[in-house]
Amino acid sequence: MYTWTPHPHLVPFDDAVRIGDLPTSPPDRLGKKEAVKELERHVARMTELQPRLYARDTHALLLVFQGMDAAGKDSTIRAVLSGVNPAGCKVWSFKAPSEEELEHDFLWRIQRRLPERGTIGVFNRSHYEELLVVRVHPELLDNARLRSRSMREHIWARRFRSVRAWEQHLADNGTVILKFFLHVSADEQKRRFLDRIDKPEKNWKFNLGDVKERGHWAAYQQAYQEVLDETSRPWAPWYAIPADDKPTMRATIAGIVADTLDRLDLRWPEVDDAMRARLQEMRAVLEKA
Amino acid sequence: MYTWTPHPHLVPFDDAVRIGDLPTSPPDRLGKKEAVKELERHVARMTELQPRLYARDTHALLLVFQGMDAAGKDSTIRAVLSGVNPAGCKVWSFKAPSEEELEHDFLWRIQRRLPERGTIGVFNRSHYEELLVVRVHPELLDNARLRSRSMREHIWARRFRSVRAWEQHLADNGTVILKFFLHVSADEQKRRFLDRIDKPEKNWKFNLGDVKERGHWAAYQQAYQEVLDETSRPWAPWYAIPADDKPTMRATIAGIVADTLDRLDLRWPEVDDAMRARLQEMRAVLEKA
Repeated sequence: MYTWTPHPHLVPFDDAVRIGDLPTSPPDRLGKKEAVKELERHVARMTELQPRLYARDTHALLLVFQGMDAAGKDSTIRAVLSGVNPAGCKVWSFKAPSEEELEHDFLWRIQRRLPERGTIGVFNRSHYEELLVVRVHPELLDNARLRSRSMREHIWARRFRSVRAWEQHLADNGTVILKFFLHVSADEQKRRFLDRIDKPEKNWKFNLGDVKERGHWAAYQQAYQEVLDETSRPWAPWYAIPADDKPTMRATIAGIVADTLDRLDLRWPEVDDAMRARLQEMRAVLEKA
Repeated sequence: MYTWTPHPHLVPFDDAVRIGDLPTSPPDRLGKKEAVKELERHVARMTELQPRLYARDTHALLLVFQGMDAAGKDSTIRAVLSGVNPAGCKVWSFKAPSEEELEHDFLWRIQRRLPERGTIGVFNRSHYEELLVVRVHPELLDNARLRSRSMREHIWARRFRSVRAWEQHLADNGTVILKFFLHVSADEQKRRFLDRIDKPEKNWKFNLGDVKERGHWAAYQQAYQEVLDETSRPWAPWYAIPADDKPTMRATIAGIVADTLDRLDLRWPEVDDAMRARLQEMRAVLEKA
């Protein structure tokens, strides 16, 4: 019952991915012009399918974006989603949790932002931060009052289980989940950071903390590998998208989103004879008024 | 790591309960005076433990109340929880879901009402209605747009799995869950309905729909049995409380709640030497001001 089809960047569901084997440069790299044309083609398809998603009201679409700093999350979301009607699409950027959020289980603040049926939800970062930044910096668990030994025992295995079960529950109830890991190389990240330092108009994007986090590169890669292994499943697949080439990345992701909407078979809701008869009655009422 | 101890009304965790074997009259029935004294004793214990639950801020306590109409949910919640500080205790009564709520998965509206760490949450009805009233009236699934064959397939088994997984996730993250099935007999329900009709001061409680629901008694009992079988687990146990005698029921439930808080070992947070030194510094600052 879960909708997915083979794709070169789909992370297999059998816990066997090695992050070192995943390309950061697209093997099927498109020229810039061609990539923009592909992106536009897929965005047009999404724009056509979105009103049907709304009219049918059977599914929600949830897009999760994760990646190292400067992997291109913000710009990809802008490029892929800029065509859709914002009335049916909400983007949430998750920052550090608030005090109120820390008083609840780690999925609570995410659950509040789930898209309604008929709409598209986009998570710029997500519950996966709890298995990435918190994994690399386990002292953050103290903020969530997870201090005792029994609360810490097998905590990562238990969190993986929680996430898998919750995503399966969402899929069971009509939310189609696509997760994108924007896989950037260390060299390309460095280049983009230097760009932010060198170009005055990009200075505002530069964050001193980002360079510090770069020092934990290997730990993050290890954490990402486990996230992909433990949580790419038929009901909520991960796609590891080569992020060193932004134009190709955008076209690739837009294609996956449009294909997924396509496969949902979003025909306009059918009107049966009874409904047609009622419509004619309403016409008669209106004409007399 | 899950806190529970044997109790005569604890529903076993091995899928083997027969609802016909569960008593609706308490075998250990207390005299009315004695029951009130017991209730008061346990409420006093809860009142003493609640501020420590708050100060430690490691756990939340979630109490779920389910039962047939007139089983005594409202009056039991009033009797058991009236002693606690309402600043740290929220009661939510779940009615039919709103349009917005129906646009999300069936746990969504419940998740929003979860108690914060350090507090007590009380659910008067709950997500279990999705496995009880919706099970007895599956046409309600249409409201939640669950119409297609693939969405309906194994829906009850999938809902049980969702509920078990979510409750385990909550327990993993510090929420202690106690679920009370107030088990009333058909005869006693009839007596209470007649009472609501005959006594003018109780008329307001009488609901014409309740009598209609009574016509589905056997289906509801079957649904309750499956709920108990499928979802009484160490991390979120069900207690099947005989509900034909209200005073004993109240004392029994208050006892279970107080015992559970007791077992959490809620000592006042310890102050270490460093903190003590900082407190003394603060005293010095204050005295100079």
